[in-house]
Amino acid sequence: MDGTVLEPLLVDLYELTMAEAYRRGGMAEVPASFSLYVRTLPPTRPYLVAAGLADALDWLEALRFGEDELAALDGLGVLPAELLDLLADFRFTGTVRAVPEGTIVFAEEPLLEVDAPLLEAQLAETFLLNQVTLQTNLATTAARCRAAADGRSVVDFSLRRTHGIDAGMKVARVARIVGLDGTSNVAGAVRYGVPASGTMAHAFVQAHGDEREAFRLFAEAFGESSILLVDTYDSLRGIDRAIEVATELRGRGVELLGVRLDSGDLAELSRTARERLDAAGFDRMQIFASGDLDEFRIHRLVHEERAPIDGFGVGSSLGASKYAPTLNGVYKLTEVDGRPVRKTSVGKVTWPGRKQVWRAADGSHDVLALADEPAPGEGYVPLLEEVMADGVRRRPDPDLDEVHAHFCREWDALPDELRRIEEEPARRVVQVSDQLRATAAGVDARIEEGV
Amino acid sequence: MDGTVLEPLLVDLYELTMAEAYRRGGMAEVPASFSLYVRTLPPTRPYLVAAGLADALDWLEALRFGEDELAALDGLGVLPAELLDLLADFRFTGTVRAVPEGTIVFAEEPLLEVDAPLLEAQLAETFLLNQVTLQTNLATTAARCRAAADGRSVVDFSLRRTHGIDAGMKVARVARIVGLDGTSNVAGAVRYGVPASGTMAHAFVQAHGDEREAFRLFAEAFGESSILLVDTYDSLRGIDRAIEVATELRGRGVELLGVRLDSGDLAELSRTARERLDAAGFDRMQIFASGDLDEFRIHRLVHEERAPIDGFGVGSSLGASKYAPTLNGVYKLTEVDGRPVRKTSVGKVTWPGRKQVWRAADGSHDVLALADEPAPGEGYVPLLEEVMADGVRRRPDPDLDEVHAHFCREWDALPDELRRIEEEPARRVVQVSDQLRATAAGVDARIEEGV
Repeated sequence: MDGTVLEPLLVDLYELTMAEAYRRGGMAEVPASFSLYVRTLPPTRPYLVAAGLADALDWLEALRFGEDELAALDGLGVLPAELLDLLADFRFTGTVRAVPEGTIVFAEEPLLEVDAPLLEAQLAETFLLNQVTLQTNLATTAARCRAAADGRSVVDFSLRRTHGIDAGMKVARVARIVGLDGTSNVAGAVRYGVPASGTMAHAFVQAHGDEREAFRLFAEAFGESSILLVDTYDSLRGIDRAIEVATELRGRGVELLGVRLDSGDLAELSRTARERLDAAGFDRMQIFASGDLDEFRIHRLVHEERAPIDGFGVGSSLGASKYAPTLNGVYKLTEVDGRPVRKTSVGKVTWPGRKQVWRAADGSHDVLALADEPAPGEGYVPLLEEVMADGVRRRPDPDLDEVHAHFCREWDALPDELRRIEEEPARRVVQVSDQLRATAAGVDARIEEGV
Repeated sequence: MDGTVLEPLLVDLYELTMAEAYRRGGMAEVPASFSLYVRTLPPTRPYLVAAGLADALDWLEALRFGEDELAALDGLGVLPAELLDLLADFRFTGTVRAVPEGTIVFAEEPLLEVDAPLLEAQLAETFLLNQVTLQTNLATTAARCRAAADGRSVVDFSLRRTHGIDAGMKVARVARIVGLDGTSNVAGAVRYGVPASGTMAHAFVQAHGDEREAFRLFAEAFGESSILLVDTYDSLRGIDRAIEVATELRGRGVELLGVRLDSGDLAELSRTARERLDAAGFDRMQIFASGDLDEFRIHRLVHEERAPIDGFGVGSSLGASKYAPTLNGVYKLTEVDGRPVRKTSVGKVTWPGRKQVWRAADGSHDVLALADEPAPGEGYVPLLEEVMADGVRRRPDPDLDEVHAHFCREWDALPDELRRIEEEPARRVVQVSDQLRATAAGVDARIEEGV
């Protein structure tokens, strides 16, 4: 469906018009550094789970302007032949320093930094922002749903609700990173190695004259992996019929996996379902729940309502959370020709200079510093690593198992108060090194002098 | 980047497990009808602009399971060889009835209906929901931003904020449908024929030692299409410098297009900018604004604050609106083997039967009816048209110019009270025909009898 998207043209026009102005001004090759970070976190989100780096690096490595792209650009009627000639020989030659995928970060901490000739670094803005902020946002949502479920299973049901196919695939990818238990998305399961998971639709029940018959046919087809959806007409009656069919199948030596609730009062229904299943001797049959779930709803079901639910299917809120429809990620010039720069727009001030983030050994705080400062003290660990040099990856990306293992270590090191699912969560504010503050003051003085 | 996505596998696993159960039960070929509609509208949204049909039809026409797909499905270890054999010969042979793209519709009105053998129709669920609800949601957002701007220009700046690449491209597509004035997305502009639009980034200003010098270089490169971004350091000072540079360029016979504000109090700043530009003799230079704009903010700027802004650039809120992070679109079985069916789950009841939506000639109301009912009266127009038969399009899709023209007619016919940008907008509730109500009651009685 996206076969005709010209991927090198996934840029904002202004990147090309600026490229032309840099070219004319003799500035295309001036060394520059940009920092990609999230300015402020969504109100209910105390942290971010970094993701999207692999796709960002893929795009940078592949970035070329072939005949089709150059013809398309020429057709815009905005860019002169001199720029198109320059783009014909373009390749990205820069350095990328980034936090590994699966790392937990906070507002104002760079997710990645690009050091490259000004024209090259500028062209990367839109694609890098798109993929890194999307995947970071999705990974954060997935991590929070997993945390809310507190050991119960969580399955991605979001593909029908995601903003298109790319987002749907990326939900499956981050599901693997944070360790969700499965995805309904078959293409995502195949591509990213997430267990494929699914039950049945209401249509299956409706398609048969009788709910019992539908359950029986499904159970005969899928045996011990069968989960029966009980709410097509009336959930309680559906539970009773599921028990009837489970009893029949037990007579043939087959134990069904469980039932799924998808509407109504899930806490109440799950208790009744548990009682009836147990009373009928099906204490090992599981109860799955879905239907407008999100991290807060799962948290309430598990921790407040003590609902006996074994697993959750999450759709809309995993695919496009209302708590964080977007992240305000930015990609800001921080240094040009060795000179630190910053923006001082109202409400949108940026820190100057190439940076490093240092995390205290006990995980209690982070320090935002200039890249060439020494560690702020004993045991601090730097989060940004050089992952690309001269436009080529320094090493193969870690596979998703490794990324997941890294995420698990990050999660284990996250203080309790930041893990909680709360409407007004604790906030971690990154500390800023003295040297970075001094550099910023110097830049401000220069701006005040009217440069 | 999505080169390895196996598009036929953009299905939820349960569609394949149900397919297997239908096959085993001898029901794969039973004629069935599904209806795709949005259950309830987002709180601030009184209508939807239908979009996404072309991509849905593309996918259905192309749907085949080749060797790679079959090997991937086999690798899941869930589906038996008999189903894979059946899928090897699969093609979609059904009929699709749909409202044309650009049509304005309301809650519970089908956007499309599929009549096909049960197995085929079921497989289409996820992809159709994904694309039709995404594009319908995006088109609705774009239409509302356009309405709020009330004749001033609106440009799509969303690519960096959309949920991935597919969504970013689809924003450009719907921008064309509803008639936005441009997109910053170069790939989208090329593919969908939207004017490419852009100004400059703060980085461009920062990259030069002096804001004036940056403006001058940009203006020299882009002459009369130059829009100078004035808020990198201080917007008012930026405006004065833009005027200096505009004066220099006027001396050389070049008139700059305008300035762009991107932070601070846009109403206040735009008034000051207007005054200073006018006083300096630049009354034809335009003022563009961007920065966390959405339909409500644009509406306030235009209608309440009377800000002298000529055009708006909208990013996050066009790409992923917090007012409608997702639509609760559903795809529900409504008829099987000639028998109307419905779901009666708590809060999720569906209307049975294949449907038509009739719009009154004066546009005052719609009637939801069974597909084979006559028109409810004189002058009613049916919204659903047969667009695919035996799995093949009935005719080529209208081009995007035609879709835009159709949207414009729809918009002109929309009553004023539904066009307004209000927190609690007027609501149109679709009327339900007597025959549809009677059919539903008949289905309920059958469900009550315990089927």
